[in-house]
Amino acid sequence: MSVTVVSLALMTAVTDIAYHRVMGRWEPNARERLFLAALELYAERGFEQTTVAEIARRAGLTERTFFRHFPDKREVLFTGSDGMVGQLAEVIARAPQESLPLGAVAEALGAVARPMQERREGVLARQKVVAAHAELRERELVKRSKLVAGTVEALEARGVGPRAARLSAEVALGVFHVAFERWVGADGETRELPDMIAETFAELREVAVGGGVPAG
Amino acid sequence: MSVTVVSLALMTAVTDIAYHRVMGRWEPNARERLFLAALELYAERGFEQTTVAEIARRAGLTERTFFRHFPDKREVLFTGSDGMVGQLAEVIARAPQESLPLGAVAEALGAVARPMQERREGVLARQKVVAAHAELRERELVKRSKLVAGTVEALEARGVGPRAARLSAEVALGVFHVAFERWVGADGETRELPDMIAETFAELREVAVGGGVPAG
Repeated sequence: MSVTVVSLALMTAVTDIAYHRVMGRWEPNARERLFLAALELYAERGFEQTTVAEIARRAGLTERTFFRHFPDKREVLFTGSDGMVGQLAEVIARAPQESLPLGAVAEALGAVARPMQERREGVLARQKVVAAHAELRERELVKRSKLVAGTVEALEARGVGPRAARLSAEVALGVFHVAFERWVGADGETRELPDMIAETFAELREVAVGGGVPAG
Repeated sequence: MSVTVVSLALMTAVTDIAYHRVMGRWEPNARERLFLAALELYAERGFEQTTVAEIARRAGLTERTFFRHFPDKREVLFTGSDGMVGQLAEVIARAPQESLPLGAVAEALGAVARPMQERREGVLARQKVVAAHAELRERELVKRSKLVAGTVEALEARGVGPRAARLSAEVALGVFHVAFERWVGADGETRELPDMIAETFAELREVAVGGGVPAG
């Protein structure tokens, strides 16, 4: 398998924020270098066959540095994820006071989708590796449930009641997930992820109201 | 944080169907006996500290019998889950031709919720054990994604297009999950799960259309 990963990491913007905040000045871009090294190795020889030592070596770093950044060789592929929780929360907090919960989350998801769109190739390469390994798919599901939890928190911080917050977060992340799958899965897809998210939210309204159901 | 945990097992009605179909006449109720023994032991001494041999012993069965039914000690807590996929698919298949996709799934979820309601205590006991162990929470998330996949298939078999099927399944299982959490989480909850599912689908319509958002 030769998925060459030349593109930069998933959501570097987000990664950078997390990186600068947490790690200060040592080993510039260590998280991203480790992420890219892991992505390459998992694509080349599989997740199981790759060791942390090999990832560190390919990144030009030590194993100790790896474990300063990530608890295990699964987590290294989810470096953007924690940053994404923070970014979602920030956009939700800034949403106009009159925004309805689902609208605020929809806007936040559109915002985090922009850097993903800019790095489409890298995101697709990562997605391929995750899809190919059960352990990574599991971790992805866990991360997704953390996104829901973070979104609930952010909505509650705006004064949204827990019931509405939970339902809105769960449904919005479901919509995001469907839009993301469409964007990833469509060969030669030219529409951009933020647009596809907006479109899927519009479909949600049709599906939920029962006024009509998209035929596709 | 509270990783979302949809409890889908412990629907013994479903389990029994799967059991009789797959296992024939050996060891009557082996699956359920193993399930109950595991549930007890995980609650008493924790998931990590319990061995398959101990589960089998408490169930009055052999380790070999355990492995004829379950690949590992996580799976034993999800014995109802595969049956639930089949039950959902059956109800979706039987839904009136004019039913909209989301309506068909909502009805199916109401149907699988009935046996869960009848065994509320058992479902809560299982839920407590799952919530307490990361490995079990992960497996639960995997099972949930399989329910979504099974629901998509069932909708497509009705002629629903893949886009609408995916979106409806994802959103409907999200709604179910929220309703389930409310039912599990509310001390002294007297409303029944099928009613709470119907109520949460009604809230979805409000949330999605933006006409109003529940304050709770």
